[in-house]
Amino acid sequence: MSSITYIRCASQLITVRGGTKEPKRAQDMSDIGIIEHGSVVVENGLITFVGSDVEAERYVHTLNGHINTIDASGKIVTPGLIDAHTHIVFGGSREKELEMRLNGAKYIDILKAGGGILQTTTSTREATEEQLIQETSKRLNRFLQYGVTTVEAKSGYGLTLEDELKQLRAAKKLDERHPIDIVSTFMGAHAVPVEYKENPDEFVRLVIEEMIPRVAEENLAEFCDVFCEEGVFTIQQSEQILEAGKRYGLKPKIHADEIVQFGGAELAAKVGAVSADHLLQVSDEGIKQMAKSGVIAVLLPGTAFFLMEKPANARKMIEAGVPVALSTDRNPGSSPTESLPFIMNLACLTMKMTPAEVLTACTINAAHAIGKADEVGSIEVGKKGDLVLFDAPNYQTLQYNYAVNLVDTVIKKGQVIVEGGALRDVPVPTT
Amino acid sequence: MSSITYIRCASQLITVRGGTKEPKRAQDMSDIGIIEHGSVVVENGLITFVGSDVEAERYVHTLNGHINTIDASGKIVTPGLIDAHTHIVFGGSREKELEMRLNGAKYIDILKAGGGILQTTTSTREATEEQLIQETSKRLNRFLQYGVTTVEAKSGYGLTLEDELKQLRAAKKLDERHPIDIVSTFMGAHAVPVEYKENPDEFVRLVIEEMIPRVAEENLAEFCDVFCEEGVFTIQQSEQILEAGKRYGLKPKIHADEIVQFGGAELAAKVGAVSADHLLQVSDEGIKQMAKSGVIAVLLPGTAFFLMEKPANARKMIEAGVPVALSTDRNPGSSPTESLPFIMNLACLTMKMTPAEVLTACTINAAHAIGKADEVGSIEVGKKGDLVLFDAPNYQTLQYNYAVNLVDTVIKKGQVIVEGGALRDVPVPTT
Ligand SMILES: [Zn+2]
Ligand SMILES: [Zn+2]
Repeated sequence: MSSITYIRCASQLITVRGGTKEPKRAQDMSDIGIIEHGSVVVENGLITFVGSDVEAERYVHTLNGHINTIDASGKIVTPGLIDAHTHIVFGGSREKELEMRLNGAKYIDILKAGGGILQTTTSTREATEEQLIQETSKRLNRFLQYGVTTVEAKSGYGLTLEDELKQLRAAKKLDERHPIDIVSTFMGAHAVPVEYKENPDEFVRLVIEEMIPRVAEENLAEFCDVFCEEGVFTIQQSEQILEAGKRYGLKPKIHADEIVQFGGAELAAKVGAVSADHLLQVSDEGIKQMAKSGVIAVLLPGTAFFLMEKPANARKMIEAGVPVALSTDRNPGSSPTESLPFIMNLACLTMKMTPAEVLTACTINAAHAIGKADEVGSIEVGKKGDLVLFDAPNYQTLQYNYAVNLVDTVIKKGQVIVEGGALRDVPVPTT
Repeated sequence: MSSITYIRCASQLITVRGGTKEPKRAQDMSDIGIIEHGSVVVENGLITFVGSDVEAERYVHTLNGHINTIDASGKIVTPGLIDAHTHIVFGGSREKELEMRLNGAKYIDILKAGGGILQTTTSTREATEEQLIQETSKRLNRFLQYGVTTVEAKSGYGLTLEDELKQLRAAKKLDERHPIDIVSTFMGAHAVPVEYKENPDEFVRLVIEEMIPRVAEENLAEFCDVFCEEGVFTIQQSEQILEAGKRYGLKPKIHADEIVQFGGAELAAKVGAVSADHLLQVSDEGIKQMAKSGVIAVLLPGTAFFLMEKPANARKMIEAGVPVALSTDRNPGSSPTESLPFIMNLACLTMKMTPAEVLTACTINAAHAIGKADEVGSIEVGKKGDLVLFDAPNYQTLQYNYAVNLVDTVIKKGQVIVEGGALRDVPVPTT
């Protein structure tokens, strides 16, 4: 007996079709494939029909088995949202740092007070794998309530072999136990830990010779990322790490040109990175090379917002033909939010992306940024039945009613996970 | 038999006590009266006990009757939030204007395309009172889900005697039927309607001689507001309108110095306004006079955010001793959100207010801005049992996990209205 979910007659079905082979660029980012009064059928977790309400009724009549019909009238239906850049697996919380910053503290003062990334590293090292699973699952639940059905998760708060493996194993178990799909990225080169402060090259060696082989051996990640930034990892170190990752089958990603113009975007093009992320200070040459090599720009306007900085120049990149994705950058220091819909609001209001572009950026382009465009990111036959019903009559309303959660229903592989905005039967992960 | 609600052992009980007589200013805005492990008892809708968990247990043992105990451990409890400046009663929706703006349209282009305030005026005039009640109640429900228990509502989209009365009557009925308390403001002088474009003084006469007396006679508003701005209502017209309001018992409020520096703040001080709102362009002299006269600054950073403008200088006003309140400015054109918690996030991140100041600004200072500080705005014995439980261990977390809804439970006059983030038994208003 097949399990059939039939989502009927959306006010607008936002398919975002036509970008499965290549991420959408330039004008194509505005083409979100709207079907008015559109319907979708999901059978055994996969989409088997997409089309008009009238055609759907005919199709459904040919099916056998129990059909769970969901009325989407008055609502829009989009692909499940995809968050292509997060650091969600961590211990501890750093909620007092914003107040310190507002009272004039600099990041160095926060570090001295025991805060900052060092605090998260300590808390993450102290946490057991099971504690990480429990804490992260709360964040995943909130992601679901905001319409996110696939999340990338980076390691990088352990910074020892065992603690990096612990983060990645926690992510792998969450991928198995939690409804959200998780794609893992190894990011041992997230920071130079204090114990290697005098000898960062030795830490790079550890990453390359011990961590990467082990991560690959245990099949714990699909990507390898590095924080390529002045005072963190040099261009040369970053290249070595990413090339080592490639030899072990880990596809490269780069935290690039966030704080200073450092050549991260150019390096992304050189090593054939899937994405370069942040890019607040990217050079024109870097943009040009990214466009040429098809590197996706994963932009994180929430981080700029929370750090009270100017966001990346999205318009310039879109106009140069760089495919753009958007993400929360969910992490405990610089972007503690799970609301990807709000990141879309920010992208419109602080980076002048349009309501259509931001939907492309959080669906098919984000899917490309995590190598899953053949499975998710658009509403097309054969893809996973990951869908979101928003309490909005058209896609513009998602950006209009800013900062409120319009998610009504979230469907993951055909199963209703969020209903009326509330989580339904989400299994709390246990050992 | 009395109805007793006992909220037990909050991780932090944020009382915001000590500001009932006068709004909080300067340093006092940071004093939010935290009781660790604090408890509250509400009997027959009013707060009868506030204190430590241990004392509360003793107090509760002296009570007779059924006690509804709510465990607040691990959560913070704040006063019900108060939104002191909204235009929620209107017909229609204008969700396509943002996209037009992002594609380069100017406000004048939007007006020419039939959008802008004229569209809302047309839709509001076309709506029946009952339609306005239905549409507004959806917005009120969303306000509740974001922890708002009292809302100010302005007229000003009718702009004829009958249509202004219709808006105010709808607000009055909603105040009676909906759990949220509504405080009404007559704002006939919101715009000069097209039919008076050639003769604005005649419209001012209509407001003063026909609308204000009728609003007062039907007891439909407590405040009178005017959009004092270049090209809208002059300083002189504004003063005439507000003085006329005063003669009829309507306390003055002003939309002041939003677009250009126009002297609205100075006028607010002169006429003894309860609040001056917006203030993006306020002069130093205006700030000085507001501080001297005790005029509350109601700041609306969401409007600046949505219009992609620089927000008001909150720090300057706080340092000058002006009491500051915050509000959504919920309206269909320039601030279509009900998330007052997000407005607090914005106030921190775009105006550098602190996590403590923004709580004062959305509770006791907002209560003063609508003349209700004796009833609401703090958790003190004798005030209404309006409380919010947030899924946060301390007040800083409200600003840390930005743009996500942390509201867990909303209690209005001792009754649980929102539970687990979802609305419970809210009566849909009917005729
Ligand atoms: Zn990152
Ligand atoms: Zn207003």
